[in-house]
Formats: sequence, structure tokens, C-alpha cells
Amino acid sequence: MSEALQAARIALQHDEVPVGAVILSSDHKVLAKTHNRVETLNDPTAHAEILAIRRACEILNTDKLVGCSIYVTLEPCTMCASAISLARIAKLYFGAYDEKSGGVENGARIFTLPQTHHKPEIYGGLMADECSEILRTFFLHRRMN
Amino acid sequence: MSEALQAARIALQHDEVPVGAVILSSDHKVLAKTHNRVETLNDPTAHAEILAIRRACEILNTDKLVGCSIYVTLEPCTMCASAISLARIAKLYFGAYDEKSGGVENGARIFTLPQTHHKPEIYGGLMADECSEILRTFFLHRRMN
Repeated sequence: MSEALQAARIALQHDEVPVGAVILSSDHKVLAKTHNRVETLNDPTAHAEILAIRRACEILNTDKLVGCSIYVTLEPCTMCASAISLARIAKLYFGAYDEKSGGVENGARIFTLPQTHHKPEIYGGLMADECSEILRTFFLHRRMN
Repeated sequence: MSEALQAARIALQHDEVPVGAVILSSDHKVLAKTHNRVETLNDPTAHAEILAIRRACEILNTDKLVGCSIYVTLEPCTMCASAISLARIAKLYFGAYDEKSGGVENGARIFTLPQTHHKPEIYGGLMADECSEILRTFFLHRRMN
């Protein structure tokens, strides 16, 4: 999670909502380390998780990340939680909970739906304080400008 | 929708699940016409809608498709429905309903959730028979091989 936080800090430097993600292979190698780039890329789907999934799939030359783990600094939104399911990621670790836009423990609660074909193991709240703090800093700064 | 179906037929030729999408600008110009390319691109997020959103945003140089419409041959899944919301698309037209993986009228019913910040106008069932038929042909063929 500290590597994902490092990626979130890069987002902050680029004035993007500071969320970072890391995907590890089944043998614990870093396949992708990405940050949110929605504004930089003019792409509303360019959340950290989506970019990480695309990158990891590119590296492994597959569309299924079987056995892989994803670390994200913020609870994935509905789009990203669904993408994690589609990518067959085995374990999801996330930092801060997101009451407003989260789709795992909040909102659509994607992985509780019978229609969700693949459900990872889920571990929420890892380094939650640090992961929240960087977001709080960002939004406070944005409101002041 | 007939243009989206045309795109779905291209997917069929490439042995991809035949789903097509078209995005129109607010003045009814075609911005993107895409088909599902999950297997070709080794990208589980490469659904027709996601590719169309990314392409239309690229053309308009924005991450918000305000006033745009999307036509999809199949009810969007949860990931794509969420992306449609994030992209602020004004109108969603879809063909076949998808009980198994749809996220609009089935499953997570994304646009009924209070947490979904933007909800398009929704028109389902357009040319539903043609849109279903091409999928039925694909899956029948796949089971026989």
C-alpha cells in the first residue's frame, strides 16, 4: 500500500485526484503502479485501477489477472470494482473508505451482488489515515483556489 | 442503432463478443463507433462503450461528454454503466436486455442508486431482436467449437 500511496502522491503533483494503485503478480512482483490520470488524459475511465489493470494485462499478455492482487489507496468506485471482477483479480486491498463514490462497501456493493461472477478476497482500511489525508489535502487546496 | 449493430458485426468477424457502440455529439455527429475488443487487445476493460467514451473524449478534448448520446447493442454492464455516468453522457440507448451481466435494468441497476451522481435519459430495447440475434449466433457458434 505504501507503493500505491507513492503513486497517489504523483497524482497530487499533477493536480489529479490523488489515488494510486499497484498490481502484484501471483509471485508478488509489481506489474503495474499507476495513478489517476482523468484530467491529464481527458479520459473519465482513467482511474488508477483501470490503468493498472490495462498495464498488467499488457505485461502478462492476457485479459485475466488470475492470482494477482491489487492495492488501491481509495475504495474502488463501481466502475473500477466491476473491472476488478472482469479481470478476475484474486485479492483487493484498499485504503480509505469512500462513502460518496465507493462501490465495494458503499453504493452498489458490487461484490455482494449475485450477478457479479467473480469476487476477490477483500481487505479494506489499510493505511486508511494516510490514504484519506492525501485526498483531504487535495480537496481542501482545490476549494481554496 | 443500426450503426452500432454494424460495429457489432465487425466484432463477430474478429471472434469477439459482438457488441457495438456509437457516440453522437450534441449536434448528432458520430464521434466514435467501436466494438468490443477484449480479446484482441488483451484488455478486460475494452468493452465497446469504454472504447467509445475514450475515443469521443479524445476527439472533443474533454473528459465530459455533456449533451452526447450513446447507442449500444447490449444493455451496458456495471462497469460501462458507471463509465457512462462518469462521462456525463446525456442519453443512453441500448438494444438487447442482459439479465446475466447488465447493470442498468438488471444487477446493480446503477442509475437507480442515490450514489450515482449523473443519470442519463435511458431508452432500452431498441432493435432488440437484431441485437440479441447476433449474440445468440456468436454463443451458439462458440459452444459448437
